[in-house]
Amino acid sequence: MNAEILAVGSELLTPQKLDTNSLWLTQELNDLGVEVVQKMVIGDDRARLSDAVAAALKRSEIVIITGGLGPTEDDVTRDAVAAALGRGLQFRQDLCDAIAARFARMKRKMAENNTRQAFLIDGADPLDNDRGTAPGQWIAVDGRAVILLPGPPGELKRVWEQQVRERLLAMLPKLVIRTLFWRVAGMGESDLDQLIAPVYTKYSNPVTTILAAAGDIQIHLRARCATAAEAEALLSEVAGQMEPLLGDRLYSKDGRGLEEHVIAMLRERKQTVCVAESATGGLVAQRLTSVPGSSHAFVGGFLTYTDEVKRTVLGVSDAVLANYGAVSEPVAHAMAEGARERFGADYAISVTGFAGPEGGTEENPVGTVYVGLAARDAAIVKRFQFPGDRARVRTFAAQWALDLLRRTLLED
Amino acid sequence: MNAEILAVGSELLTPQKLDTNSLWLTQELNDLGVEVVQKMVIGDDRARLSDAVAAALKRSEIVIITGGLGPTEDDVTRDAVAAALGRGLQFRQDLCDAIAARFARMKRKMAENNTRQAFLIDGADPLDNDRGTAPGQWIAVDGRAVILLPGPPGELKRVWEQQVRERLLAMLPKLVIRTLFWRVAGMGESDLDQLIAPVYTKYSNPVTTILAAAGDIQIHLRARCATAAEAEALLSEVAGQMEPLLGDRLYSKDGRGLEEHVIAMLRERKQTVCVAESATGGLVAQRLTSVPGSSHAFVGGFLTYTDEVKRTVLGVSDAVLANYGAVSEPVAHAMAEGARERFGADYAISVTGFAGPEGGTEENPVGTVYVGLAARDAAIVKRFQFPGDRARVRTFAAQWALDLLRRTLLED
Repeated sequence: MNAEILAVGSELLTPQKLDTNSLWLTQELNDLGVEVVQKMVIGDDRARLSDAVAAALKRSEIVIITGGLGPTEDDVTRDAVAAALGRGLQFRQDLCDAIAARFARMKRKMAENNTRQAFLIDGADPLDNDRGTAPGQWIAVDGRAVILLPGPPGELKRVWEQQVRERLLAMLPKLVIRTLFWRVAGMGESDLDQLIAPVYTKYSNPVTTILAAAGDIQIHLRARCATAAEAEALLSEVAGQMEPLLGDRLYSKDGRGLEEHVIAMLRERKQTVCVAESATGGLVAQRLTSVPGSSHAFVGGFLTYTDEVKRTVLGVSDAVLANYGAVSEPVAHAMAEGARERFGADYAISVTGFAGPEGGTEENPVGTVYVGLAARDAAIVKRFQFPGDRARVRTFAAQWALDLLRRTLLED
Repeated sequence: MNAEILAVGSELLTPQKLDTNSLWLTQELNDLGVEVVQKMVIGDDRARLSDAVAAALKRSEIVIITGGLGPTEDDVTRDAVAAALGRGLQFRQDLCDAIAARFARMKRKMAENNTRQAFLIDGADPLDNDRGTAPGQWIAVDGRAVILLPGPPGELKRVWEQQVRERLLAMLPKLVIRTLFWRVAGMGESDLDQLIAPVYTKYSNPVTTILAAAGDIQIHLRARCATAAEAEALLSEVAGQMEPLLGDRLYSKDGRGLEEHVIAMLRERKQTVCVAESATGGLVAQRLTSVPGSSHAFVGGFLTYTDEVKRTVLGVSDAVLANYGAVSEPVAHAMAEGARERFGADYAISVTGFAGPEGGTEENPVGTVYVGLAARDAAIVKRFQFPGDRARVRTFAAQWALDLLRRTLLED
């Protein structure tokens, strides 16, 4: 079966914005064994969208339309799809009540125009959206499916996971797909590729994909076979060859990120961590505390952006600051020790560096970051030189700081 | 005149790759006064591409097709476009010689299949490509234009700049595009729409688009007129009606985000800010310090995740914590005051709340957040009830915290 994805929204036809939902949806569809054969972006234009939906439905069995389900005049998807299918729209009191209840829970008044979102195309099944006001819709058309999803990525993914994926699977021929999803820290993308290419290039099934974000690399393996046993055997065969090559750089086999693993390890051991951040300005703590339940392991942090604050709050000595400068190994060391003592935590992470564009010295140019880790009986500091702009340097620094904590926990 | 962009290539239908050429082309077309009304991505599939080109040419005056001009079997653009137009293809010895000469200059042997690139659609004008082997093609069709461009961005831009832009300009009525890009904080998307719809629905030119992220809303206005003066007058006319409705919720007219505006305001006044974050765990500080040069205004922060740390680090009293709980107005107040005093800053932002999924009380359920702001001579605390999961609650809280600082700075 083939799918097409139509993204709706005039903002997606500007020079600034791309439809990125389709990447995630393509991954999901591919995982189900469905090929995406065409993608489209259409503005908030009823007639154009209606024509495009009608044409797509002639070509493909699955037509997914994202966006345009909001409450405003601009949101034309419901109307356009109804027109394309030659169907009417019905106001559904139950959907309207659900939207009103959502506003009530947030102690906000529902705006009059939100009632637009309660219109359902004749014969459609509503797809509940517990993260937003716009319900999705599933319209079965002669063994084909037209699926309307909300545009905001968080809502789209939720509706898909809770109500679309299973239903789509039931429509599809029984090819079994099994996937592995690994995450790797502590190396670059090309190094990783060189390391594992000799393994994965031997196989066309499973398909291997490497995806890189700053300092965090994902490896996807996808096997498609007639039976689950066959797919799983194939995956183990390939995984068994890759795993020894990766060693402890492979940190996740369950999709969870570095912060989730670190918090889980700490909670398991009933240990705690705190931070002292300068260059990253809260980014390490923000990642740690993004994890539900992190309050059991994360105690607190000091964000020390000036020399004076490093001195008064963390107890970094005048002499060390004067002799070595704030971006230095001894300061990273003193920041970690100072934070650990003051919070009484088992571990402290410190970060000091030049994120740019200002700052930097000959010895420590922009991009230089010192990451410290203090434990009860030892402390280490690592020096890094990261490429890219301020945002990239900070992202890399936070990633390597979390990885340093992970490695320390593995050893302890 | 309207344009459509078709990107050709099966790799653009994978979960890893987006067509980014269309962003650059959209900017170029907009600058010429041409609106992009539809974008498409098609795989290396002759029949599909041919249908898509024929359909696009019925809808739009300018059809740009990028990619698929290479020398391999997969490269179907020439054939597909010829079929869509009902025209033939001719081998052109002069084009073949030019390709051969290019190989000779690089001291490489031309492969047999490169001769495919010397086929020209009947009636087409070749568009020389001095950066690659694939020439582009311009086909005039009853006052419309079908333009074939090579896929590699460097080649595409070069061919466009040297041979397409001027020729397109000659086709066009003299239209100019001018845009406004505003950002609004402190209200929801539907409330904003209700507020300004009475203005923007009166105009089909300029076109108004509203885009919402958590707590941050963008308004785009785009006017297309015969002259720049006319477009600017039209924009002022509409902007002049919207601006009083938005009041101080309109915080940005230059595209910059809330953190950039806040840091700029502080730097201008030579004032400083610090934070005391609990529920947001560093998110407010991370946003402030993401701004280049923020070290001139951001002093530091305390991340106080436990009651004990709120007590020892920030000086929140036992009695207040015991009587009101950590998520309360008095604690937010004490956190802001405590941080401001300790850092000696002009302003302190505090955040305490239940981001979920754990925690919450009957009075203060998950999603409740208290945001405090302390200045030298006054302090206020606001209570919010945010919807969504942990990530959304934290994002909303950080956004409203920064907005509270912005409003305070405006008043002071």
